Amino acid sequence: MCQLLGMNCNVPTDICFSFEGFCARGGKTDEHRDGWGIAFFEGKACRMFQDAKPSAISPIADLVKRYPIKSTNVIAHIRKATQGDIRLENCHPFRREMWGNYWVFAHNGNLIDMNSELPGFYQPIGQTDSEKAFCYLLNILRRSFADGKPTLTQLYSVLKQTTDLMAEKGVFNYLLGNGEYLFAHCSTHLHYIIRSSPFSQAHLIDEDLTVDFQALTHPTDRVAVIATTPLTDNEVWTPIQPGELIIFRDGAPIEVKS
Amino acid sequence: MCQLLGMNCNVPTDICFSFEGFCARGGKTDEHRDGWGIAFFEGKACRMFQDAKPSAISPIADLVKRYPIKSTNVIAHIRKATQGDIRLENCHPFRREMWGNYWVFAHNGNLIDMNSELPGFYQPIGQTDSEKAFCYLLNILRRSFADGKPTLTQLYSVLKQTTDLMAEKGVFNYLLGNGEYLFAHCSTHLHYIIRSSPFSQAHLIDEDLTVDFQALTHPTDRVAVIATTPLTDNEVWTPIQPGELIIFRDGAPIEVKS
Repeated sequence: MCQLLGMNCNVPTDICFSFEGFCARGGKTDEHRDGWGIAFFEGKACRMFQDAKPSAISPIADLVKRYPIKSTNVIAHIRKATQGDIRLENCHPFRREMWGNYWVFAHNGNLIDMNSELPGFYQPIGQTDSEKAFCYLLNILRRSFADGKPTLTQLYSVLKQTTDLMAEKGVFNYLLGNGEYLFAHCSTHLHYIIRSSPFSQAHLIDEDLTVDFQALTHPTDRVAVIATTPLTDNEVWTPIQPGELIIFRDGAPIEVKS
Repeated sequence: MCQLLGMNCNVPTDICFSFEGFCARGGKTDEHRDGWGIAFFEGKACRMFQDAKPSAISPIADLVKRYPIKSTNVIAHIRKATQGDIRLENCHPFRREMWGNYWVFAHNGNLIDMNSELPGFYQPIGQTDSEKAFCYLLNILRRSFADGKPTLTQLYSVLKQTTDLMAEKGVFNYLLGNGEYLFAHCSTHLHYIIRSSPFSQAHLIDEDLTVDFQALTHPTDRVAVIATTPLTDNEVWTPIQPGELIIFRDGAPIEVKS
C-alpha cells in the first residue's frame, strides 16, 4: 500500500527533518517507489510538489528536502500502487477547491468498488480508488451543506458518518486538510506525536540523522506529526485507534462538541 | 501588469529555453517581481510550481529552469500586482477541476468590478480579479453545459461570448488550458510563434542565450509558443489581434466549425 505523513502546527514550521526520513521509504529503506507528493498550506494558499519517480531519487523531492518551506499544515504521501498505473495523475495528495478553500487528501489503503458511486460535481482525473473516494467525500459534503461552509461540528458529523460507511469497502487510512484543520482517519495503521516544550532530540529510523528541536524552536511552539508508522526511534508515538477520526488544530487534537 | 507565457506542442517538449528568458523579466530585465507560477500538463496530470518571490531569484524557478520537464501544454505567469497583495494564493496560474480534467488559467490585465458577479460553485481562494474571472468563466461553462463536457465548437462559442462581455470590464489577455487545448485571448498584447521543420537557431532578448532547435528536435515536431511580448530577437512573432480568441492544438492554431 502507501505511507502517509502529516504535520499540523501552531506556527509555520518546516518539515525537512520528517520528510527526509519519510522519503527514504520511497525506494531506499522501503518499497513505496511508485511516486510521491506533498502539499504545504501557507495561509489559504497551497503549494504542491509531486513526481511519479521514487521519492528517494526524485530531483523535486531533493529540492523539498533542502528548501525549508514553512507551513502550519502539510500532507505528504509515498505510493505503492494498488489501483491505477504509475503515473503523475495517480500521485497523492489530491486537491480540490470547496467553499473558497483548498482541500487536500491523501490515502493509504485500498477501497473496493468505488466506481459504483454516483457521479457528482467533483470528478476524478486519475484512476485511483483514492481520488474517487476523495471526490465522493467532497460531493457528499457539498450536498449536505448546499448553503455553504458548515460549522466544524456539523462538518465532523457528516465526515465521520460518511467515512465509517466508506471504510466498509476496505482499508481507509487518510489525511484530509483545508489549511485550518487536519483530519486523520485510522482504519488500520496511523500514529502521531505532539512535540512541545520542553523540546528534545529526535533520531530518524530511516536515516542516521538527529535533530535537536530545543535549538530550533520557541517554547510556545507545538507541532503534531502524523505518520503511518513512527519516523523516530527515541520518541513515543501514539497509535490512532481503528475507526478513530481525529481533528488536529494548532498542533494538537481537538474535541468537537456534539 | 503581468506577463504570460504558454506552450502547446504535438510532442512533449521542455520549456527551459523560453522559461529562462521569461524568468529574467521577473525582477532582472523587467519589473514583474511579485511572484510567478507555471503549470505543466503531462497527459491528464498537471504539475504546478509557484512562488511569491521574484522568478529571477526564486529557488523553485531555478529548479524549473534546470530540470527539463517535458509537456505538451504549459502555462506560465510572472506577476506585477494590481489587485491582491503579494501572496502565494494570488500567484497565477490558477487551477480547478471541471468534467474530470484540470483547467488552468493565467491573466494579464486588470478587470474592474469582478466582485459584482453572482457566486457560483467555483469560488476564489485569493483576492485577485484574475482568479475571480477564472471562477466566473468556469461557473458560466458549468451552467451552460450541465450535462457534461461539450464539443469544442459548443465550448468555444460560450467561451468567446463570455470573454467578450468580460473584456468590457478592462484588460483581459489570458491563457486557458485543459491539457488538450490551449486558448489564448488577446485584449491588448499577446504574440505567438510556431516553430516547425526546418528548425533554426533562436536567441533570447532577455538573456544572452542561443539555442539550436535543429539539433534538439525531430522533423515532425511542432511547437507553438505564446507570450505577452516576443522572447527572441531573431524570429518573427505574430501579434494576436485585440478581441481574438485562438485555440492551439498539437502546436498550431485550429479553426472551429461554427
